Amino acid sequence: MTMGRLIGVGVGPGDPELITLKAIRALAEADVVAHFAKAGHVSHARTIAAPHLRPQIAELPLAYPVTTELPKCSTEYREALRDFYDQAAAGIAAHIEAGLVVAVISEGDPLFYGSYMHLHVRLAPRYQAEIVPGVTAMSGCWSLAGAPIAQGDDVFVVLPATLPEAELERRFTDADAAVVMKLGRNLEKVRRALTRTGRLSRAIYVERGTTAEAVTLRLEDKCDNDAPYFSVILVPGWETRP
Amino acid sequence: MTMGRLIGVGVGPGDPELITLKAIRALAEADVVAHFAKAGHVSHARTIAAPHLRPQIAELPLAYPVTTELPKCSTEYREALRDFYDQAAAGIAAHIEAGLVVAVISEGDPLFYGSYMHLHVRLAPRYQAEIVPGVTAMSGCWSLAGAPIAQGDDVFVVLPATLPEAELERRFTDADAAVVMKLGRNLEKVRRALTRTGRLSRAIYVERGTTAEAVTLRLEDKCDNDAPYFSVILVPGWETRP
Repeated sequence: MTMGRLIGVGVGPGDPELITLKAIRALAEADVVAHFAKAGHVSHARTIAAPHLRPQIAELPLAYPVTTELPKCSTEYREALRDFYDQAAAGIAAHIEAGLVVAVISEGDPLFYGSYMHLHVRLAPRYQAEIVPGVTAMSGCWSLAGAPIAQGDDVFVVLPATLPEAELERRFTDADAAVVMKLGRNLEKVRRALTRTGRLSRAIYVERGTTAEAVTLRLEDKCDNDAPYFSVILVPGWETRP
Repeated sequence: MTMGRLIGVGVGPGDPELITLKAIRALAEADVVAHFAKAGHVSHARTIAAPHLRPQIAELPLAYPVTTELPKCSTEYREALRDFYDQAAAGIAAHIEAGLVVAVISEGDPLFYGSYMHLHVRLAPRYQAEIVPGVTAMSGCWSLAGAPIAQGDDVFVVLPATLPEAELERRFTDADAAVVMKLGRNLEKVRRALTRTGRLSRAIYVERGTTAEAVTLRLEDKCDNDAPYFSVILVPGWETRP
């Protein structure tokens, strides 16, 4: 029997039109489509991919374990996630061994902060694995905001908002352009770091970028510090612009 | 008469299938398609977009001025480029004023180190301007190489290879994951900086990513220091991977 294969498919940042022809072809070729989601939630990637799935396609939903009671740095948390990815990879491996093509769909780009990476490192050493890159969430956000992000010899950096405040300040000062991800409860801290480094006036806040519910505004004009986890802050570079 | 509008259209990193449905629709709506290229060369973006252009579409090629005799930091160089972008923007503005939809096509993503940005800052304050983000060259490269680039709380940085060697070393040490762009004659210097910071063994060299002529290999396995300007080096992060 012929062995199947794995395809990591990026479906873009949210706008259903921001999917590539290559992703659409991968979905048409897939026998099984796998997607990550929080338990009880619909996968965003599944929603984006829906118009391109074959009518009778087999689906393999991968529900993250509920770990809200565990501290993220704890051994228990790491082990719960490791077991989850091990089991997800084993389920996909069984389909590949049975000769099937398994597409794992990811919002944005599969190898840029995506959960698919946990499957890739487990499966790519053993099976044929292909990646279809996608438009990243951050590209979707700066395009929606019409904000030229980096040019010429700019140094561009992506920072998690979870970094300590002093570390954020140091890194803002050390880069020409920045994107801050995973805002959630960290917006107040990030705002202070941007203010102290003189970058508040050019910071742009984007929430649910490229979806129908997208919000984009200058951070200075945002009156509260409420931000969903998947909102971002853009700090455009290109200071020598005409 | 109705005013036309501007669309900055990202057509992806090279593989003609890595164009989005939104880019294809923008090209179908455009009355005029503009593209940058070196004098005497065909625009890569034009080649990628070709299958989606309307048969009778008007084209506006924008040929960079020949400036090889000028030092890049000189006033003459800056003025030659500024005049070129001013004239290009004026040509596009005339079409928009005439009620036409002008699509400026860019390889990769228009607002991420793209020449389109020079037109956007000149035209977006005056006319309706929309951006269609694209898959970046770097996403194309790490997908082709199957290299998970950044995960979790990784700090990810994009560095121009033109930085001084000590600066490259400092920034490699200060980031979890890095992409080095604009290699050209700088490969030897970048290789030394990667070696001294203990990152040579995980560095991946990618040339002409996602095109039919793509080359990808471990930098350690590359015997020479010849690299085209548009090659990149990937330094994957995610050091805690399982």
